[in-house]
Amino acid sequence: MIPGSGELTHTDRGLLYGEGVFETVHVRPAGPWLLDAHLARLARSAAALGIDVPSGLAELVSGITHTDGALRLVVTPSTSFATVDAVPETIRAERRDGIRLITHDVGLTRRPPWSLAGAKTLSYAENLAAKRWAVAQGADDLLWLDSHGQALEGPTASLVWLDGDTLCTVAPDRTGILPGTTAAHLLARSAEVGLRAEERMITAAELPGVDAIWLASSLRGLAEARTLDGQERAASPWTPRLLDLLGFSPS
Amino acid sequence: MIPGSGELTHTDRGLLYGEGVFETVHVRPAGPWLLDAHLARLARSAAALGIDVPSGLAELVSGITHTDGALRLVVTPSTSFATVDAVPETIRAERRDGIRLITHDVGLTRRPPWSLAGAKTLSYAENLAAKRWAVAQGADDLLWLDSHGQALEGPTASLVWLDGDTLCTVAPDRTGILPGTTAAHLLARSAEVGLRAEERMITAAELPGVDAIWLASSLRGLAEARTLDGQERAASPWTPRLLDLLGFSPS
Repeated sequence: MIPGSGELTHTDRGLLYGEGVFETVHVRPAGPWLLDAHLARLARSAAALGIDVPSGLAELVSGITHTDGALRLVVTPSTSFATVDAVPETIRAERRDGIRLITHDVGLTRRPPWSLAGAKTLSYAENLAAKRWAVAQGADDLLWLDSHGQALEGPTASLVWLDGDTLCTVAPDRTGILPGTTAAHLLARSAEVGLRAEERMITAAELPGVDAIWLASSLRGLAEARTLDGQERAASPWTPRLLDLLGFSPS
Repeated sequence: MIPGSGELTHTDRGLLYGEGVFETVHVRPAGPWLLDAHLARLARSAAALGIDVPSGLAELVSGITHTDGALRLVVTPSTSFATVDAVPETIRAERRDGIRLITHDVGLTRRPPWSLAGAKTLSYAENLAAKRWAVAQGADDLLWLDSHGQALEGPTASLVWLDGDTLCTVAPDRTGILPGTTAAHLLARSAEVGLRAEERMITAAELPGVDAIWLASSLRGLAEARTLDGQERAASPWTPRLLDLLGFSPS
């Protein structure tokens, strides 16, 4: 726990109702990676719940360094705190070796008007239950589809794919999914490696035909789908190049 | 907080991910009401998340008494505790005066296989966001509909309605909604006041034609819908009779 962090109480709404917001930030020798983007999303998530983010949070954590660390920022209506840990070996392995990815309909037609799907809240039990279900099916992670078979996001990650010379991700504005910080940063820098970038929709039926598929998230960076719904896929030469672009060193 | 309760930590998964389960129990001068049924549901919810409920929880709270109290039981993977407060005046007013109820499509087609909808988890932000949305529309509470317009449940309550001499509620088994402890108890005792009981489905279009509509939950007991989607409804003579049957004294 970071010094200066808040006290916990048994009546905190973050604990009692999952009413709070969080961010997970990769920590490097140079400090927390993409901290401003994560703090901006934290503020947007908090606004969706009507919660204030304490002003001192950035100063509290901006000096933290780690060889390969995970910074977690938590804000609830009554407290805020940060924790730092080493990135777990399971996540480092997903960067290196890729993942077995399966797809499944999330069962949603359209988001109701009160939906918090675009906010990163502490009410994360369903996300983690979805990942556990994927593991029980013999996979590592899950890609949610809408009722038309269009790809949305993973329970804890964004979808990124390569189609020819274009790096693509799903449009958060059109779908109500959580805007991915890592995915947005990657697409913004695609020209540095000679690729275009575009927000698109893609169906599960079209996905096997693309050149590479990744789940993008703060700690993994990119985890390449080496199987999709049980079908093996060759490792893309772009995976190490893009991880390098994102500043993830080989491990 | 009840003596003997667990410690909180900043890495508790109940706080970090809303991974935990809870029950709210009405406390009376004779003790916690329907405690066994709530503990049974707590155990089923915990099983859905793969969490153990500590064996001493029933003994810890069974002796608690209150004139009109709210006992909250919380179990996470690393801690468990209970809190007791007076039932808020807003909830007492809903028993007495009824509520303005509106309906809205919850946006679900079918529950995905990992769904925790039948478990009462701490990931409650979406439920509370739905209630806040209803309040922003000028209502007090919300009734969720499936994509065929069939009534499901409220964000924090079960639907109960009177159709002639039959007290009805929505079938949890067919819909995946949370089985309501108060609604089940009420229907089990309906013969004592000369009514039948039945689990049924009903559409939002059919609801205005029934004899009475209530949201049933532990602390409110029954809150009668005095308006439904803006249309006024006469107070049912059954509301005080059924509240009396459930042991809620007039306030």
